[in-house]
Amino acid sequence: MTTLNDEDVPREECGVLAIHAPGVQAARLAFFGLYALQHRGQEAAGMVSCDGGTLHVHKAMGLVSQVFNEANLSNLKGDLVIGHTRYSTTGSASLRNVQPYEIETRDGPVALGHNGNITNAPALRRELLDRGIGLQTSSDTEILVHLLAGAGVGDWRSRIASMMARIEGGYSLVILTRNAAFGVRDPWGLRPLVLGRLPDGGHVLASESCAFAPIGAEMVQEIGPGQICRIDNNGYEITQAVPEQKLAFCTFEEIYFARPDSIQQGRLVHQVRQEIGRQLARESSVEADIVVPVPDSGVPHAIGFADQSGITFSEGLIKSRYIGRTFIQPTAELRESSVAMKFNPLPENLVGKRVVVVDDSIVRGTTSGPLVKMLRDAGAAEVHMRVSCPPIRFPCFMGIDMADAEELIAARMSVKEIGDHIQADSLAYLSIDGLMTALEASDGYCNACFTGEYPFETAVQLQLLEKGQFAQVFGD
Amino acid sequence: MTTLNDEDVPREECGVLAIHAPGVQAARLAFFGLYALQHRGQEAAGMVSCDGGTLHVHKAMGLVSQVFNEANLSNLKGDLVIGHTRYSTTGSASLRNVQPYEIETRDGPVALGHNGNITNAPALRRELLDRGIGLQTSSDTEILVHLLAGAGVGDWRSRIASMMARIEGGYSLVILTRNAAFGVRDPWGLRPLVLGRLPDGGHVLASESCAFAPIGAEMVQEIGPGQICRIDNNGYEITQAVPEQKLAFCTFEEIYFARPDSIQQGRLVHQVRQEIGRQLARESSVEADIVVPVPDSGVPHAIGFADQSGITFSEGLIKSRYIGRTFIQPTAELRESSVAMKFNPLPENLVGKRVVVVDDSIVRGTTSGPLVKMLRDAGAAEVHMRVSCPPIRFPCFMGIDMADAEELIAARMSVKEIGDHIQADSLAYLSIDGLMTALEASDGYCNACFTGEYPFETAVQLQLLEKGQFAQVFGD
Amino acid sequence: MTTLNDEDVPREECGVLAIHAPGVQAARLAFFGLYALQHRGQEAAGMVSCDGGTLHVHKAMGLVSQVFNEANLSNLKGDLVIGHTRYSTTGSASLRNVQPYEIETRDGPVALGHNGNITNAPALRRELLDRGIGLQTSSDTEILVHLLAGAGVGDWRSRIASMMARIEGGYSLVILTRNAAFGVRDPWGLRPLVLGRLPDGGHVLASESCAFAPIGAEMVQEIGPGQICRIDNNGYEITQAVPEQKLAFCTFEEIYFARPDSIQQGRLVHQVRQEIGRQLARESSVEADIVVPVPDSGVPHAIGFADQSGITFSEGLIKSRYIGRTFIQPTAELRESSVAMKFNPLPENLVGKRVVVVDDSIVRGTTSGPLVKMLRDAGAAEVHMRVSCPPIRFPCFMGIDMADAEELIAARMSVKEIGDHIQADSLAYLSIDGLMTALEASDGYCNACFTGEYPFETAVQLQLLEKGQFAQVFGD
Amino acid sequence: MTTLNDEDVPREECGVLAIHAPGVQAARLAFFGLYALQHRGQEAAGMVSCDGGTLHVHKAMGLVSQVFNEANLSNLKGDLVIGHTRYSTTGSASLRNVQPYEIETRDGPVALGHNGNITNAPALRRELLDRGIGLQTSSDTEILVHLLAGAGVGDWRSRIASMMARIEGGYSLVILTRNAAFGVRDPWGLRPLVLGRLPDGGHVLASESCAFAPIGAEMVQEIGPGQICRIDNNGYEITQAVPEQKLAFCTFEEIYFARPDSIQQGRLVHQVRQEIGRQLARESSVEADIVVPVPDSGVPHAIGFADQSGITFSEGLIKSRYIGRTFIQPTAELRESSVAMKFNPLPENLVGKRVVVVDDSIVRGTTSGPLVKMLRDAGAAEVHMRVSCPPIRFPCFMGIDMADAEELIAARMSVKEIGDHIQADSLAYLSIDGLMTALEASDGYCNACFTGEYPFETAVQLQLLEKGQFAQVFGD
Repeated sequence: MTTLNDEDVPREECGVLAIHAPGVQAARLAFFGLYALQHRGQEAAGMVSCDGGTLHVHKAMGLVSQVFNEANLSNLKGDLVIGHTRYSTTGSASLRNVQPYEIETRDGPVALGHNGNITNAPALRRELLDRGIGLQTSSDTEILVHLLAGAGVGDWRSRIASMMARIEGGYSLVILTRNAAFGVRDPWGLRPLVLGRLPDGGHVLASESCAFAPIGAEMVQEIGPGQICRIDNNGYEITQAVPEQKLAFCTFEEIYFARPDSIQQGRLVHQVRQEIGRQLARESSVEADIVVPVPDSGVPHAIGFADQSGITFSEGLIKSRYIGRTFIQPTAELRESSVAMKFNPLPENLVGKRVVVVDDSIVRGTTSGPLVKMLRDAGAAEVHMRVSCPPIRFPCFMGIDMADAEELIAARMSVKEIGDHIQADSLAYLSIDGLMTALEASDGYCNACFTGEYPFETAVQLQLLEKGQFAQVFGD
Repeated sequence: MTTLNDEDVPREECGVLAIHAPGVQAARLAFFGLYALQHRGQEAAGMVSCDGGTLHVHKAMGLVSQVFNEANLSNLKGDLVIGHTRYSTTGSASLRNVQPYEIETRDGPVALGHNGNITNAPALRRELLDRGIGLQTSSDTEILVHLLAGAGVGDWRSRIASMMARIEGGYSLVILTRNAAFGVRDPWGLRPLVLGRLPDGGHVLASESCAFAPIGAEMVQEIGPGQICRIDNNGYEITQAVPEQKLAFCTFEEIYFARPDSIQQGRLVHQVRQEIGRQLARESSVEADIVVPVPDSGVPHAIGFADQSGITFSEGLIKSRYIGRTFIQPTAELRESSVAMKFNPLPENLVGKRVVVVDDSIVRGTTSGPLVKMLRDAGAAEVHMRVSCPPIRFPCFMGIDMADAEELIAARMSVKEIGDHIQADSLAYLSIDGLMTALEASDGYCNACFTGEYPFETAVQLQLLEKGQFAQVFGD
Repeated sequence: MTTLNDEDVPREECGVLAIHAPGVQAARLAFFGLYALQHRGQEAAGMVSCDGGTLHVHKAMGLVSQVFNEANLSNLKGDLVIGHTRYSTTGSASLRNVQPYEIETRDGPVALGHNGNITNAPALRRELLDRGIGLQTSSDTEILVHLLAGAGVGDWRSRIASMMARIEGGYSLVILTRNAAFGVRDPWGLRPLVLGRLPDGGHVLASESCAFAPIGAEMVQEIGPGQICRIDNNGYEITQAVPEQKLAFCTFEEIYFARPDSIQQGRLVHQVRQEIGRQLARESSVEADIVVPVPDSGVPHAIGFADQSGITFSEGLIKSRYIGRTFIQPTAELRESSVAMKFNPLPENLVGKRVVVVDDSIVRGTTSGPLVKMLRDAGAAEVHMRVSCPPIRFPCFMGIDMADAEELIAARMSVKEIGDHIQADSLAYLSIDGLMTALEASDGYCNACFTGEYPFETAVQLQLLEKGQFAQVFGD
Repeated sequence: MTTLNDEDVPREECGVLAIHAPGVQAARLAFFGLYALQHRGQEAAGMVSCDGGTLHVHKAMGLVSQVFNEANLSNLKGDLVIGHTRYSTTGSASLRNVQPYEIETRDGPVALGHNGNITNAPALRRELLDRGIGLQTSSDTEILVHLLAGAGVGDWRSRIASMMARIEGGYSLVILTRNAAFGVRDPWGLRPLVLGRLPDGGHVLASESCAFAPIGAEMVQEIGPGQICRIDNNGYEITQAVPEQKLAFCTFEEIYFARPDSIQQGRLVHQVRQEIGRQLARESSVEADIVVPVPDSGVPHAIGFADQSGITFSEGLIKSRYIGRTFIQPTAELRESSVAMKFNPLPENLVGKRVVVVDDSIVRGTTSGPLVKMLRDAGAAEVHMRVSCPPIRFPCFMGIDMADAEELIAARMSVKEIGDHIQADSLAYLSIDGLMTALEASDGYCNACFTGEYPFETAVQLQLLEKGQFAQVFGD
């Protein structure tokens, strides 16, 4: 089914946040932080706060601004809070999967919010079931909380470390107990997690630093691979819970997911993307009159491309500012132009022009062809597509929903074939080396979706399996 | 807070239902069965069906007629279903407590619906936590499903038996697996459970037989204490899972909870109640002109009283037919007459008359005084209150919310004092012996709320504890 | 379509209420009054209050208890209020028809609530359209407000009188202006309207006196045919606005609609219904063992029948107390027994008994046959149906939805044929003379639905028209 | 109250659309057209379709994508439809004001959707009330439909012309009758209205041409001032209904409201805005390193400014893509930085840079100061603000909600004072002459908000009145 919602983009899986704000209602701050993390998940949102040992929960389907109001926010008392925004999939949306997830354990109540994917979840699930534990959902997150609940003696940090020793995958977690909040990052550093300092004391942990500015927080540092950061009345404390693996930070965070105003690996994402655009221009510039982005995410790349190539930056496509899911079907006559519901061309900007159009990525390739046609129909003399990343040829099992392998256009067509398919005058992708150059790195990134070189074995095995093969227990 | 919802009545905790209907959508039948069990719980409703091994769930807050519509009912495919209606408490209402409860176990998915109360839940809860299991709710039902999940080898019937061996309390359960549905009754027979036969094959298990008529089912038998009844493609099979204890069927089911058209202990409830009314008349008749019930539940008792005493049956009070919670507060002037929002008198029926008013029970005693005053203000020459059960002096821990011990008026006042308090010309309760006579039994019933003689030790201990003393983990 | 909602009963069209309560928030009182008028309409409810010349409105679909909460009730400021409960039809339910209806006129804002039917509405509608007025709904009520708005000079009472002079039909109205509330009754007295006095000053006008008790009001008098009653700071004032016509109070208010605790034509309705039951016994008693009502409305008639005949009153049918619309279809197997969703029999009360079953009316005859069968299947030796009114053979155009003429079973079958059709051992209706005897009247009632003698010519003409013939302007 | 919703921008009042699509469900096309007009109003949306003479309506609060779904869209049958998107005000939002407005008249049903403001509405309102018409709302639109309903003999076009002769103001209307749809534009041409041709026959009228591309339509022409365009089975017909006045097209449509991909006055809006940016650079360039827009509306102006000045275009501010109203209050500490909830700076792009920030307008001036501070705090060496229009010193009464006169910062401060107030290194507005140059016009535009020269007398009078002075009849 082709709908207005079918964007040909990778999908992130969630944003996480934790705040300790002495003397202040932490949840009120967290609201503004989650609002800034909305781009990491629009399906649902939730918070669990802790007030003198009692946990308070509110979570629901919807945008952060829809889920919370003064009434329910007021109930989220206390100076400790964790929050979560959940990403929107079609169909599997269900209230019982909304996070954070809260449980009682022998050591008291605990709540957990999760961004990422646990690759050895099937085995862990089997093990829990064999221990005689009943599982209510098919989510990784429930597995994590049971690992925590059964993690043996010691303090919460050692329990968390014990859980980390059991799991494999890409993940950033926030965990709330009666006395502290914790941030946890996987040993490969696949998913991001940063620590900030509040202006009046207290700390904040978040998937991205863009959550800091609205609450007046300042960056302290990124949490390292395999580290746990505890925030509480004693400030913050970072410990290496499990050995750091070979760093494999997700390049797609840099290319597409992260907000341009976030800082990742020490650099502003907007600058990284400009540099990617510049590198793309260095590798495959072309004679042209204007550079236009595919809005909104292509803008920084296009600015960089324009800057490097000397070709004028302009706009050639307008995208609706109003986000709203719809399942209204176009009539048969309009079906082929579903892209036309999302983007409108700017003919007078394009007419007679040789146009370089910069997109951040091509996943299934369903949008690119109609966009090229739209630009040409609006008068462009030539349309050269430049893509700010290498061809995506392998699925991701570490937290990004790229599409299934057989849907990835670059998995079954060469760049030349794709260029013909989308009928561009020319098509070029960024090279992997070029990407690394723009990232100022020779290493330390996961490029598995381009190379098929996964950071650990399980992910390779998963690629060999049909995704749909895991037993579906609960229908919807 | 005094609201229109403050009826001075005991509260039941839920109705359960299970259907196996070969070749038919079982959930559609279950809808009409649950509709007939609505009196056992108006807060929420739910069903889980099984279709070729896949479980389908729908549950929500609201009346059965509000929770289900054609769209969600159509999804509940399969010839096996269990259903649940949940009772309405103030405040603790929350979606996550809505039943049935469904989980995956090492032996496949299972769903469970529960009516009753597990008295050793605190100890079981501790034990599960100590096993390293995380618990998501404070409900007994989650404890039951984890006991099931961890119940060891064997088939589902032996697992259920194993669970039963661990729990103490009054309960009727319905359990759904991939191949069968089960009905389970506690070894004391505290809560009711009956088996019926569908007209075109298949069986139904329900809290009460009133669920049978709307779906054309016929009574087969009551499930005995400590028994499990399995219904599936092989018909039904009843086994004694744990030894039968001394039968202790809840007298309040007979007096108040059950629908008058249900059959319990082999007799039609309406007939039992008429007989209770007759016995009440034998014990404490009085010179009077009319017998009027407190509607609606007092009607059969009043018919029996009128029949035995020869005093004319009439109506003296009208009760609104429209059920609807409201939290609108009366003005200060109206506050004392909150009973007047619920009941209106019929003055011309009452004026100058000596009136016997028959109520099924007095719990906290907040309604009786205003009702007596209302009848008198409407012109009654005399008002004699007759109560169809003995004084309620002890709380129930086996599935009925009677109110806390300190709220029970008969726990702190003599009958004489209560009569003075409510300003009746006379007040009489049914005697315990009289109740047993009406029930045609010398034994086999739980009368703990009248006598304090609980069927097992734990309940006695619980009475000694403050109810609020159990740790409250999750705020709301 | 046969659904659980298909009761074979006439349907009332709305309840109205007006309160002037000096120094008190009138809307808070009105809430409890409307709650007591809920039986006159369950589709929607609304109030308009006046506070220092400003009108405040809240209205919505749903029961009174669902429509109002503390938040919206608090906004309904002022010591003047009118309220409305709207009756439930299938399909045409729409927010824009919810009352009261409020408009601005050259003489200030005015709001109006309406119970009844305007028989010359089509002509008035045409006339308004010809005056160049645009009409937003197909309702009578909008016609009334435009007649009021255009009613010329003078005070509001003379404007209302001017409107009354133009309209024909059965109606009770409540009207709110900046300084007063008014009650208005049609010149035939077809629809009821009563005046009460509040305990601390102020007055209340209501469709029925059952609205008085919950707010502590006392009956003052019934408003006479063609009268206007104004309530404001000067107390109340009743004037004869248009000449009184030959009194034609709706007998169905007495037989079925009004709550039993209301006073109509000077008598308690419950007493009238008992007397109807006695008269029915005088006319057509039969050898029998028990008298059972069709619950709930048949109870007072059955009590009277039992009292007169000496046959024991009992219950033979249980009706669900839980009102809730549902559109779930029974399966093919269950379809014929849709009555079985509503009523359950009490077999042990019936077995071997000769039963007189008393119903208040038979409209389309769809329920009676299944009920007779249900009683017989439950063991009744004989089933004698007694109906507390004469055969309904003509539709009503003065405010009652009886069904279309062709649907009325008594319009196309004799009593003998109906008796055969429903397979009762005997069937008898009350005679018209008997009804008048029970009402202690030789005259003053509208019996058009039995006799076809309408109180005015237009209604006769309407009977000759197809109901569906009036142009339908707006689809739904 | 300062909330996240307080953007310091002018507010448009609605978008209108009409479609005649022979052989096709017009409402389905209209859905995609309204979706493209969402920027003209996000509070509510509605459509009325006509199918063989019957009108079908659906309208509700919410975004177009929320208001319509397959179920309600399917009901909007027929090849004629009009649609409306309504703008979002705080507080006065109410379902009864949602458009289109539909009524029955003596000449059949008619529906109307309205963008604009009728300046002589108070006088017309008085006149209608004096004619004895009751008015249900305080909206201009109800006045229009009553003028239509009472507009005398002739066909609909002459009735519409008759209505136009009575009203003064800026307006674009869409009107639906049983046989045709009409577009109507005020004689000053204040509000926009364009005609397009559908690919398979039929026509579309819309506030802006951006509604054409998603449905495959092509521009035919703009409707002229004082013209009516009828679309029906005979194609389209344009007539001059009232004499064209001196053209006064709203410059703010060009500067801010219209989507950049719309064509107005023969030019693509994006090009006009680039030219405005170039003119602004010509008038008041400055030595600087980068030009950054205030997103999203400032982008085309900034592109033009960069192009003319030769200063590099970049981004310095990120704006949340997720639209969602919220009323959550920041804590006291955060209050001053409410702008920080909306915009985040891009420090590395700004640090050490001399920055020109281009905004489209300054209305109340509440955002500019915090934005300047944010840029400076992020490291900008200098911040020069350039505004793409002249100072706004007068309120608009022709369809734009600019804010009240006393709220307009330029009405009480000089440009110098504003520059000091917002603490910019320099501040410059576009000159009126420069604006006209960019618009390639010496005349034909309404610049009243800059000059106080209103196109007609009434608007001047309105400026002298307190807005709140008109009687408020209905509270909320």
